[in-house]
Amino acid sequence: MTGAAAAAGLPAAERIDARGQVALPGLINCHTHSPMTLLRGLAEDVPIEEWFDDHVWVVESRLTDRDVELGARLACAEMIRAGVTCFADHYFAMDAVASAVAESGLRAQLGQAYFSSQGPEGRERSLDFALRHRGAAGGRITTALAPHAPYTVDEADLAATARLAHEHGLPVHLHAAENRDQTEASLARHGRTPVEVLERTGLLGTDLLLAHGTGILERDLPALARASGRVSVASSPRGYLRFAWPATTPVRALRDLGIPVGLATDGAASNGSLDVWESMALLALVQKQAEGDPRWLTSRQALHHATVQSARAVGLGDEIGGIAPGRRADIVLVDLSGPHTAPVHDLAATLVHSARSADVRTTIVNGRVLMRDRSLLTVDVPSVAAELRERLPALTDRSRGGRVQTYGKDGGRGRDGA
Amino acid sequence: MTGAAAAAGLPAAERIDARGQVALPGLINCHTHSPMTLLRGLAEDVPIEEWFDDHVWVVESRLTDRDVELGARLACAEMIRAGVTCFADHYFAMDAVASAVAESGLRAQLGQAYFSSQGPEGRERSLDFALRHRGAAGGRITTALAPHAPYTVDEADLAATARLAHEHGLPVHLHAAENRDQTEASLARHGRTPVEVLERTGLLGTDLLLAHGTGILERDLPALARASGRVSVASSPRGYLRFAWPATTPVRALRDLGIPVGLATDGAASNGSLDVWESMALLALVQKQAEGDPRWLTSRQALHHATVQSARAVGLGDEIGGIAPGRRADIVLVDLSGPHTAPVHDLAATLVHSARSADVRTTIVNGRVLMRDRSLLTVDVPSVAAELRERLPALTDRSRGGRVQTYGKDGGRGRDGA
Repeated sequence: MTGAAAAAGLPAAERIDARGQVALPGLINCHTHSPMTLLRGLAEDVPIEEWFDDHVWVVESRLTDRDVELGARLACAEMIRAGVTCFADHYFAMDAVASAVAESGLRAQLGQAYFSSQGPEGRERSLDFALRHRGAAGGRITTALAPHAPYTVDEADLAATARLAHEHGLPVHLHAAENRDQTEASLARHGRTPVEVLERTGLLGTDLLLAHGTGILERDLPALARASGRVSVASSPRGYLRFAWPATTPVRALRDLGIPVGLATDGAASNGSLDVWESMALLALVQKQAEGDPRWLTSRQALHHATVQSARAVGLGDEIGGIAPGRRADIVLVDLSGPHTAPVHDLAATLVHSARSADVRTTIVNGRVLMRDRSLLTVDVPSVAAELRERLPALTDRSRGGRVQTYGKDGGRGRDGA
Repeated sequence: MTGAAAAAGLPAAERIDARGQVALPGLINCHTHSPMTLLRGLAEDVPIEEWFDDHVWVVESRLTDRDVELGARLACAEMIRAGVTCFADHYFAMDAVASAVAESGLRAQLGQAYFSSQGPEGRERSLDFALRHRGAAGGRITTALAPHAPYTVDEADLAATARLAHEHGLPVHLHAAENRDQTEASLARHGRTPVEVLERTGLLGTDLLLAHGTGILERDLPALARASGRVSVASSPRGYLRFAWPATTPVRALRDLGIPVGLATDGAASNGSLDVWESMALLALVQKQAEGDPRWLTSRQALHHATVQSARAVGLGDEIGGIAPGRRADIVLVDLSGPHTAPVHDLAATLVHSARSADVRTTIVNGRVLMRDRSLLTVDVPSVAAELRERLPALTDRSRGGRVQTYGKDGGRGRDGA
């Protein structure tokens, strides 16, 4: 930092003693549902249908704005401690999330999710949110339109979303081709894959962030290749293992098309944590195994996904993802003095395969220190945890009734979070 | 601890304030090569043959006893910080490792590795080591005979090892059926799988710890089922992903046979770290995906592998792996006050999928505190690291020549470490 400031002819606002540490661009969580920290550990070791229908949607239908805000604050605290400086969030009651982001000092791309089952009002609220919050928190908040997924948002709504994206200059963030079953269901229903639905509805002409994509097939690659928008994909490999999905994000095929793949955790309720550092290591490991090629997805490539490609995925490729004059100062300092990171024969390998998120000592966003020597400066975790302890029993009380909708079925009701 | 001491009518020797923390049996690393911390990050993103032939064996052929001891001390420091209280080590120059173990306060099962290419002397030194060190360090050190693997130790030597194991009451620790290629090579050479070689040579009648076993086939299960010895398997799933092996340890089939599967990291040069906590989470995740079943290998099962089954794997099923009167006090205290472990809906899930090794605050072995509030009390990491910085350039100097043997080829020379 001192070097860059000096190069720009500026006095250093602060000097940080980072001997034995490495400065890296902050990590970026390209797809999460931050308030789902509340549900972490609630539904374990079950298939995704049961996870949604019998657990997650039941609890989500009871969440108040206050719950969402507390969950988002907890998530911000966790991410700052894990060296994450920016995240893309796709959830409900996003005003509450925006408030947590503003307070925490993090950078975020936020989108208010909607289902077609909500009627036109869902899409209108997503647009309203995106326009009201764009550029908020001193520019740290950017926004996106956030249809839930092609299996819950119909083609007319998706096409309307594409038009709104062009009209207002907004990106679109959605789930698509999450797994092979979804792709099969889409083929059975329309004769088209989810990616082909995205093309047909014009969404591949927008700045599109597509979550997961483990159901992307070979036949989808031509549509992705001719996409006129800036399409990117977020991969959260831990969840795919957890749900025993047969495939992972086809990173190699996407690389050949020039499509950036950013790192993500998805929500903490499926991942267990918001540990993007772990996503970085798992991306490398799972890709090697999926491709049957130990030379593929090297440590350097993993760092490229974590920085340059993730920055592009959240639409901030010129702002973050690197440490250089003119870029935002989103920087983490990583302690390499521990026994588990010695010796350093290959810094990229040390960072990806030996270091851990807990080795981040200092997290800086937009030039502001949010964590110093492991101490959080902007989120009061004990007070959040104390309030949550009082509120959680009502949320998880099984006597209050069960299923509110069914996963993978068209027209799932969705919840509107308020 | 206070509770157990009180129950036994004993005064507490010390009281530790562990509010907000959970006491767990210390983790056990059931298969590692501790001095290979020296080679961490040295050879990345290559197939295993190249990893061994062009990198690992080249450097290992130059290691002195002092290098081995420094590498083992670094490993002990790393494991204590990661909540590991016991490890099974299989390497060369094991007197140096025993010295590091004694000094560190850890518990370990140690075996001096040998190849048939060393002649009878290799096996004799393994036996000599096992007899000299058995019960050392106040009983914290146990020993094993340690033939390298069925592809580097011939049938006569394996059979002699089985006889020595019976004669001296020693367990045997070896690599076998590490991957599918090894099994195929064994079938091509003998018409027998590695497990069938173990049966034929009498090793399945010993207390046998078999590392990896990702090449165990369905046809091996009957031999394992009729084994008269206490056979167990160590699984280190990260390395299998890294080397892009097509299969992982068949934990479900082994469970059906009553064979314990312990957690392991293998050496840090292939794993990146000695983080058994990560192995625990990866075991669950990789097993779900391998079996195509999200209900398989629950968080509770992962904890059972980490504790009860790992203790059995290292021959200490009655001594460690649980917190109870009469067991050794090998205990770790895990801080759950961080934002990434809140809230706790399911303690097993929190521990396996949200907590990390860095959440271990205190590590106790045999009633002695080895780490207190993240501070190591028995290993001086800066002094080890400083000495290593001076010694490593000579070890990794490429101008000093290349290959010393070839992986997977019979009669590989091996190194004797001194």
